Amino acid sequence: MSSARDEANKIAFQRLVSAEPVLVDVRPALEVIPGMRKHLVLASGPPAPWADYTGLLQRAIFNGALYEGLASSHEEAARRFDAGELAVEALQTHSATGASTGVTTASMQVYVVENRAGGNRSYCTLVESNPPRVFVNGCWGDDVRERLDFVNKVVAPVLGAAARSAGGIPLKPIMRRALGMGDEMHTRNDAGTQLFLNALVPSLLEVAGEMKEEVRQTVRFLHGNTVAFIRLVLAAAKATLDAAHGVERSSMVTGMVNNIKEFGIRVSGLGDEWFRGPHADFLGKYFPGSSREDEVHAGAESWNTEAIGLGGFAQAAALALPFRGTVEDTVERNRKMYDITIGVNNEFKIPYFDRGTPTGIDIVKVMRTGIRPFLSGGVMRRDGEGVAGVGPLVASPGPFEAAMAAYTRRYGAD
Amino acid sequence: MSSARDEANKIAFQRLVSAEPVLVDVRPALEVIPGMRKHLVLASGPPAPWADYTGLLQRAIFNGALYEGLASSHEEAARRFDAGELAVEALQTHSATGASTGVTTASMQVYVVENRAGGNRSYCTLVESNPPRVFVNGCWGDDVRERLDFVNKVVAPVLGAAARSAGGIPLKPIMRRALGMGDEMHTRNDAGTQLFLNALVPSLLEVAGEMKEEVRQTVRFLHGNTVAFIRLVLAAAKATLDAAHGVERSSMVTGMVNNIKEFGIRVSGLGDEWFRGPHADFLGKYFPGSSREDEVHAGAESWNTEAIGLGGFAQAAALALPFRGTVEDTVERNRKMYDITIGVNNEFKIPYFDRGTPTGIDIVKVMRTGIRPFLSGGVMRRDGEGVAGVGPLVASPGPFEAAMAAYTRRYGAD
Repeated sequence: MSSARDEANKIAFQRLVSAEPVLVDVRPALEVIPGMRKHLVLASGPPAPWADYTGLLQRAIFNGALYEGLASSHEEAARRFDAGELAVEALQTHSATGASTGVTTASMQVYVVENRAGGNRSYCTLVESNPPRVFVNGCWGDDVRERLDFVNKVVAPVLGAAARSAGGIPLKPIMRRALGMGDEMHTRNDAGTQLFLNALVPSLLEVAGEMKEEVRQTVRFLHGNTVAFIRLVLAAAKATLDAAHGVERSSMVTGMVNNIKEFGIRVSGLGDEWFRGPHADFLGKYFPGSSREDEVHAGAESWNTEAIGLGGFAQAAALALPFRGTVEDTVERNRKMYDITIGVNNEFKIPYFDRGTPTGIDIVKVMRTGIRPFLSGGVMRRDGEGVAGVGPLVASPGPFEAAMAAYTRRYGAD
Repeated sequence: MSSARDEANKIAFQRLVSAEPVLVDVRPALEVIPGMRKHLVLASGPPAPWADYTGLLQRAIFNGALYEGLASSHEEAARRFDAGELAVEALQTHSATGASTGVTTASMQVYVVENRAGGNRSYCTLVESNPPRVFVNGCWGDDVRERLDFVNKVVAPVLGAAARSAGGIPLKPIMRRALGMGDEMHTRNDAGTQLFLNALVPSLLEVAGEMKEEVRQTVRFLHGNTVAFIRLVLAAAKATLDAAHGVERSSMVTGMVNNIKEFGIRVSGLGDEWFRGPHADFLGKYFPGSSREDEVHAGAESWNTEAIGLGGFAQAAALALPFRGTVEDTVERNRKMYDITIGVNNEFKIPYFDRGTPTGIDIVKVMRTGIRPFLSGGVMRRDGEGVAGVGPLVASPGPFEAAMAAYTRRYGAD
């Protein structure tokens, strides 16, 4: 029994580490996301009924409806969602992903990332600003709309043209190199963003003939940006995890996302069910002016970064992160992740350990050791004013217990 | 007495940390280096008579004569140097600097780096290849000549045009950021090189109209390069140290360089004299096929990196360096440098310590503590086949003892 699981996990792990995510295009969501339609808004988290989209997540969805011209006020948006004229669905069920609330509407441009090893694709919107006043954090206003317009109408066409001209921009070489430059690729993507810009330069020179001013503005935008690459990491992670999903008997986690109500995980050998439970516990620091009372988990798909062995699973690579706690704590938390993962990804090296990243979370190991997955990230402000705090989090045991029970029901006890 | 020295050191330290090195142009050495002439070869190390330039350093100088068309064979070059038709002088006496042997001839293109805080300039040649078969390591052959031609005729004009178009490329912001991305900026310049390319992109787009193919080749060259930025760091270090030199009573080191015969240091309050002694001790690892017998110190100006608080003084920022030894040793060696330096450079932060770099080596503190400056670097192969090994070194006490004796003679005992 245990050996059948080990064999299955080897296969799932192999698919995970051999994925080859490549940015192939940038297109409006409506054109490329399977099942996307004009009156649909996609959002973060495991699938849920409309009634579960409350608080900040609901507000962000309403903001999306405003941006898309589906409503002219939050009140009108609320009426139309309640009446079923507008709908919300989970990004995860559309091969897509997002940051924070992940709100994605039909006209928004998305990165198209193809896993060349498996042929499957994933999609994610572009970031339009440095934190904290980012649209997906639930922020809204003329400034946000203007910046969204800028990335969707200026930056996205340039990046799409460059990606097509290059015949695709392979993301793994950038990720590998960024890990040696202080990014853990969830909370810190400073090196990745600049390496991404560098990888684009030859094709930017090609397309500059027809769109020189747009190229100039795109370069300026990326140059001053410290987080843009996260959206590509997220799309890469989703394409990677989808490729590793569906291996009979595998107990490897292939998705970790939350909406405002709950945290959910998906397991390779357990079909399309999401196992749900309480949100992760935030151990980080609050920004001045914010406290625990302001904190909300409004949705996040970026825990998929941890599911592919980055973020909290590579935290010792990112000692320049603010609010990381002591070096000792960071290193110790990161080190424990080797005890709950299936293997080591030798392509992604943590300089501090001189060792590959701990990769492929095994729900059986999580349950046996009692070690909770270490996450890198933050929490939003309830009032839509951005980020309340950043730093380490630990996943709650609930979703893993639920998944383990389902695994035992399906495949029997060990 | 001690307080007069402290005051002087504060001034020298302040000049060091407030330097603002900016790449303003790239030009042939003959056009820009003060005192440069057609029949002169510049090389690394404290000033020395021709007879002291022996072994690999001499060979590299002869290679330079071949490249410049000053001789058609090593034999002819030897005759012409012996006869005084050709001359060699120290880079340091021409406001210039270099890597390894530092060999610089009249037609070679050099970075022109201006310290905007002091108005002084420094100069350094461009790297033409990734290690180990680099011209300044004493390597020679048709391949080396071809690559030198490529950087001098294709890359340098593009970089010069881009720097002028940008109105100068400030180097400190790149250095600051690179330190947070795993570079200690002596042995590792991977992030710095990519950030430099990055900083150039807007002006590369400007100049691409007239020289598109050259720009394309330059981008490809920098994109695949992991060391190019060291030459800019060296020019920045030299411009910085020159600005901090000449403060009466200051015991701060303003130069650390070696030729094949000896290691030399210069002290801010002790005029133009170089205090000499044995080479540094190499504690690193040899590459396969090399051993202690192959090792030679053929010249190096890159210890100036340590003199501005980088390299071995920021080693804990570069845990991805190969052959670094254990994390504990690296961190401990780095930490000791706070005991022999005048201050902390808060602009250059070491993520591991969450603290600025230990900066401004004080010969008095070196003598009192007995702690030898920790250097990051390597040793060359005697036979001109490149690098024998890389890793940590420690400076020998000799030059510091000599400088301390001179300081006491000049300013009295404490």
